[in-house]
Amino acid sequence: MTSHDQPKASGYRPPAVPDVEMRGFWGERIDAVAERTAMILYDRCVAAGMFDQIDPKRPVPDVKMPWHVRADGTPDTVNVQMFWDSDVAKVIETAAYALYRKRNADLEAKMDAIIEMFAGLQQPDGYMNSWFIRMQPGQRWTNLRDCHELYCAGHLMEAAVAYFHATGKRSLLDVMCRYADHIDTTFGLKPGQQPGYCGHEEIELALIRLGRTTGKQRYLDLARYFVDQRGQQPHYFDVEAARRGVDPAQWRHKTYLYNQSHLPVREQTKVVGHAVRAMYLYSGMADVATEFGDDSLTEALKGLWEDLTSKQMYVTGGIGPAASNEGFTDYYDLPNESAYAETCAAVALVMWASRMLGRGPDRAYADIMEQALYNGALSGLSIDGSRFFYDNPLESRGGHHRWTWHRCPCCPPNIARTVAAIGSYMYGVSTEGIAVHLYGASTARLSVGATEVTLTQDTNYPTDGRVAIGMALARPARFTLSLRVPGWCDGSTLRLNGEAVSAGMLQDGYLRLTREWQDGDKLELDLPMQVRALHAHPAVKADLGRVAIARGPLIYCAEEIDNTADLNAIVVSDDLSAAKTAPLPALNGALAIELQARREHWPQRDGRLYDTRPPELKPETARFVPYYLWDNRDPGEMLVWIRAGR
Amino acid sequence: MTSHDQPKASGYRPPAVPDVEMRGFWGERIDAVAERTAMILYDRCVAAGMFDQIDPKRPVPDVKMPWHVRADGTPDTVNVQMFWDSDVAKVIETAAYALYRKRNADLEAKMDAIIEMFAGLQQPDGYMNSWFIRMQPGQRWTNLRDCHELYCAGHLMEAAVAYFHATGKRSLLDVMCRYADHIDTTFGLKPGQQPGYCGHEEIELALIRLGRTTGKQRYLDLARYFVDQRGQQPHYFDVEAARRGVDPAQWRHKTYLYNQSHLPVREQTKVVGHAVRAMYLYSGMADVATEFGDDSLTEALKGLWEDLTSKQMYVTGGIGPAASNEGFTDYYDLPNESAYAETCAAVALVMWASRMLGRGPDRAYADIMEQALYNGALSGLSIDGSRFFYDNPLESRGGHHRWTWHRCPCCPPNIARTVAAIGSYMYGVSTEGIAVHLYGASTARLSVGATEVTLTQDTNYPTDGRVAIGMALARPARFTLSLRVPGWCDGSTLRLNGEAVSAGMLQDGYLRLTREWQDGDKLELDLPMQVRALHAHPAVKADLGRVAIARGPLIYCAEEIDNTADLNAIVVSDDLSAAKTAPLPALNGALAIELQARREHWPQRDGRLYDTRPPELKPETARFVPYYLWDNRDPGEMLVWIRAGR
Repeated sequence: MTSHDQPKASGYRPPAVPDVEMRGFWGERIDAVAERTAMILYDRCVAAGMFDQIDPKRPVPDVKMPWHVRADGTPDTVNVQMFWDSDVAKVIETAAYALYRKRNADLEAKMDAIIEMFAGLQQPDGYMNSWFIRMQPGQRWTNLRDCHELYCAGHLMEAAVAYFHATGKRSLLDVMCRYADHIDTTFGLKPGQQPGYCGHEEIELALIRLGRTTGKQRYLDLARYFVDQRGQQPHYFDVEAARRGVDPAQWRHKTYLYNQSHLPVREQTKVVGHAVRAMYLYSGMADVATEFGDDSLTEALKGLWEDLTSKQMYVTGGIGPAASNEGFTDYYDLPNESAYAETCAAVALVMWASRMLGRGPDRAYADIMEQALYNGALSGLSIDGSRFFYDNPLESRGGHHRWTWHRCPCCPPNIARTVAAIGSYMYGVSTEGIAVHLYGASTARLSVGATEVTLTQDTNYPTDGRVAIGMALARPARFTLSLRVPGWCDGSTLRLNGEAVSAGMLQDGYLRLTREWQDGDKLELDLPMQVRALHAHPAVKADLGRVAIARGPLIYCAEEIDNTADLNAIVVSDDLSAAKTAPLPALNGALAIELQARREHWPQRDGRLYDTRPPELKPETARFVPYYLWDNRDPGEMLVWIRAGR
Repeated sequence: MTSHDQPKASGYRPPAVPDVEMRGFWGERIDAVAERTAMILYDRCVAAGMFDQIDPKRPVPDVKMPWHVRADGTPDTVNVQMFWDSDVAKVIETAAYALYRKRNADLEAKMDAIIEMFAGLQQPDGYMNSWFIRMQPGQRWTNLRDCHELYCAGHLMEAAVAYFHATGKRSLLDVMCRYADHIDTTFGLKPGQQPGYCGHEEIELALIRLGRTTGKQRYLDLARYFVDQRGQQPHYFDVEAARRGVDPAQWRHKTYLYNQSHLPVREQTKVVGHAVRAMYLYSGMADVATEFGDDSLTEALKGLWEDLTSKQMYVTGGIGPAASNEGFTDYYDLPNESAYAETCAAVALVMWASRMLGRGPDRAYADIMEQALYNGALSGLSIDGSRFFYDNPLESRGGHHRWTWHRCPCCPPNIARTVAAIGSYMYGVSTEGIAVHLYGASTARLSVGATEVTLTQDTNYPTDGRVAIGMALARPARFTLSLRVPGWCDGSTLRLNGEAVSAGMLQDGYLRLTREWQDGDKLELDLPMQVRALHAHPAVKADLGRVAIARGPLIYCAEEIDNTADLNAIVVSDDLSAAKTAPLPALNGALAIELQARREHWPQRDGRLYDTRPPELKPETARFVPYYLWDNRDPGEMLVWIRAGR
């Protein structure tokens, strides 16, 4: 049991997934993924015909394929999609983590069979993409802007790393290294190379992962090339379009803001375009900054981070309000009912935030990582792991429900792989020491330089803020343990072996303890969880006069089933001192919050629509449940931002 | 000076426009129309090429015509429209009232020339429609559903009546009587006739007007036929489509709810579809109910009235929230920023309300008539009479402004003709007596049976609620004078020749005074105008926690120019007792309202988007101006429903 990824420079890097064993809250979520979601994802790929595209032994399918039967009994079809390789890759990645959690010979055999398909597809020169090998042969690398070609490669690299970590099998890893070598030969600034990069970022962060796992500097360098080259002039997507005989101006997304190639990345200051693409780019930039100690990238990222989190993020950590571009619009434009806030985008924000921690612990990043993780991302997966949200509005009149699958099936495996890999987000490890970014019952086997440390968390987090941390070491070792004190927490305390630790140790929101650690050292961290009412910046029109109820890292919402309909008629008091919590058996024992509230009524007034008399207020108790759990019971209205005051 | 329209049955009918001379508030508005708008409308019809379609002496134009030059310098085109006859008709109607107000030989000559064009178009059998005579010859009466053919005829009938009243010239009236005779021969339930009716209602109310003016029962009967036949089975639009070889189901508006032909009119209970069409239908139904004493129509109309005004009307009297169908959606769906609320629809609601008064005075109708007139309709015309609103949102971020013209130029002449004809909406006359529905400085020459009564109003209404009414009669006469006490008014008083009149005389919201009236009788009505805060039914989500400020019949709004931007950060107090009024010289001396308010601020908080600390409130004075006057000064934000409370 060792950490697979050995850090080489001073940055903080995540442990590999198998190095952290989760229990408690996340243990249950991971079990749902391992026992149910992983196989469901595979089955639905089969049902959607995805392997008909990928398997080189099957006949090449038509672009339009039968899919399912609609509710009205008529058959429906789906177009074969050029990015299906990436969705299958995320299914493999999810299955890899599931196999680590719980061996499953059937699932493993199925994954091996898929990997054999990809291996069978690979061309002598290393190229490997099912769309351009089978559906559009001869057109490879002609449209990087639109065709997700390097993006698919990136996700397969991530899958290869995960499957290797989980099973020790190298087949997909070898395939993807050969493909990465081919990509490295094809793209770059040397003579004979194309100065290209992908319209949908992903390969940048994937190459870092591949480089860290294989130890090959070449992949890290290639990631840096893709980051550096983005948005340079002459613009590659213009050149490439002209080569295809197409007018670059005739493009449905109109501007390169859409894929963040409007400027070189270090000159970008505003978070724009397609939300997932933006987050994957910034994730890749952060990884490159960590690997190369690149302060110029870190500076640009800090500005972008500020831009996103101070003007463009839902309180759930959801991002990208608009369906039209699956992305960003204007500052403070955060409508609740029409929020797109794709599950993938919140997942990608978690990814970016975790990578911002590569330069050192800072709760500016970890707080948002936690916020997006527990709310806008985790909402994407039903309790039982069988159904999924694609978009995550903060208000519903009762018509928004989880999918069993989606035509664009990116979100289900994305949230599933994130949940199953959660252990790697909890910690950061460097030569300096260990940072604990997230809390949750778990056992982590980490390496600080040559020292192996087993770190145990016993806690009911996020139901309760008390966390007992135990250290096991073969021999005493000096390093820094950094414990995050969340920004939402007021009155935290820490005891080390029974003695209080001064809050003066707080640096960038982390209690930093540098000492010689002994086997058996014990820490008791207490993070009180008061019920909070959050107000939004007044420029967010949708939230005016409203509050979001929160407790610990969880954002809450009202559901019709607990409150009856017309949730917008409920007005809660600003004073939350009388707030109560109560466990909800129907929602895995999660804590509900009950608040004193009033409901507006409009009794008989001769059918008046407008009146000088204000609505009458009748007292009632309003109940709230964690946002991530909504739509797991009877369907109905949902509301995060509840009216407050008066 | 006599009333041109002599009532024949017991209902209340409006006086002809020339019988009421307006001064004060409406006098100024009418002068703007007479001195400026009427000629502007003509000039813009010329600029838009509308007479190229209509004038039989010119070559037939292409369907696409040059129109104007865009802001970027490129030329724009407009399609010749099959309903241009109706727009020109409303221009003639406006000009007629303008000529009555103020003789203008140039304008009259121009109208005579247009009338000569129509006369020249008229076919030997009486048919007269420029589109089907010049643009699509041979296709007349083949698509009543979509082609506005009878609608155009209706507007020309209204123009003919108005021009005859204003100038005494019969040419257009004779043309339209011949056309009406042709229509009466063509449509009906007798052998050889088509059981058709128009997809866009209008001819029903126009035939009533034509019948009242000419005394021909045939036109009243034809109006009744069109009303009765609507929505009967087999459905005429199905039959007609089949005759054209078209599938009736393949229609872009999908359902006959759009044009209110989904059911026979007496079975309709919900206000649906295109808003202007609905209002014109109900106007025609009300006219038929008045002329024929038809209680079954009145009953249906009462239900529809309740449906509209209790669930589907903006506080401005604007109606039809959606642009997609220019009409109605769901109950209580009244978004403010995206409100369509076409000027024509508010005008048409004024028309319907005025006709609901045909069965007798009832402020249920007159109050709404006044509300729509002073707010959602009058907003359509700029102070100087030169620019127009087509849609009338109740909130703007600063991008909504008046047009000089519109591709679909229905609204400018519609609000102009309504303003210029306002005198006919102020009174109702029957054999029983006179009803005063609206107040405003004016002199009306009315006939109650054989008695001629001159009724004078001296008042600054709507700036002030005191109205002095004087009666002049050749000899004493017994009849009922009904004076409306608006529902918005608290504490009204009336004195007759100096003596207080008991409020016990109030019936259906009118003080009804039956006595022998003498020359020189004087009434002093006082309608106190307190500043009011209106609350919306809690089902109107857009207005939750907000109030609309009102005084007398006027709804107010906040404009950026008076308050600085971010109007949604302003929170007014529920307590309006400290409200002040002050005349605004820049807006013709209209009264502004000033309220104590607080503005939400979000001072430096490290770029936080969400915070447990609520926004800070700083006191400020919020200023409101009458809604109908907005966008007459510097452009900026506008807001009707202002946040209130706390």
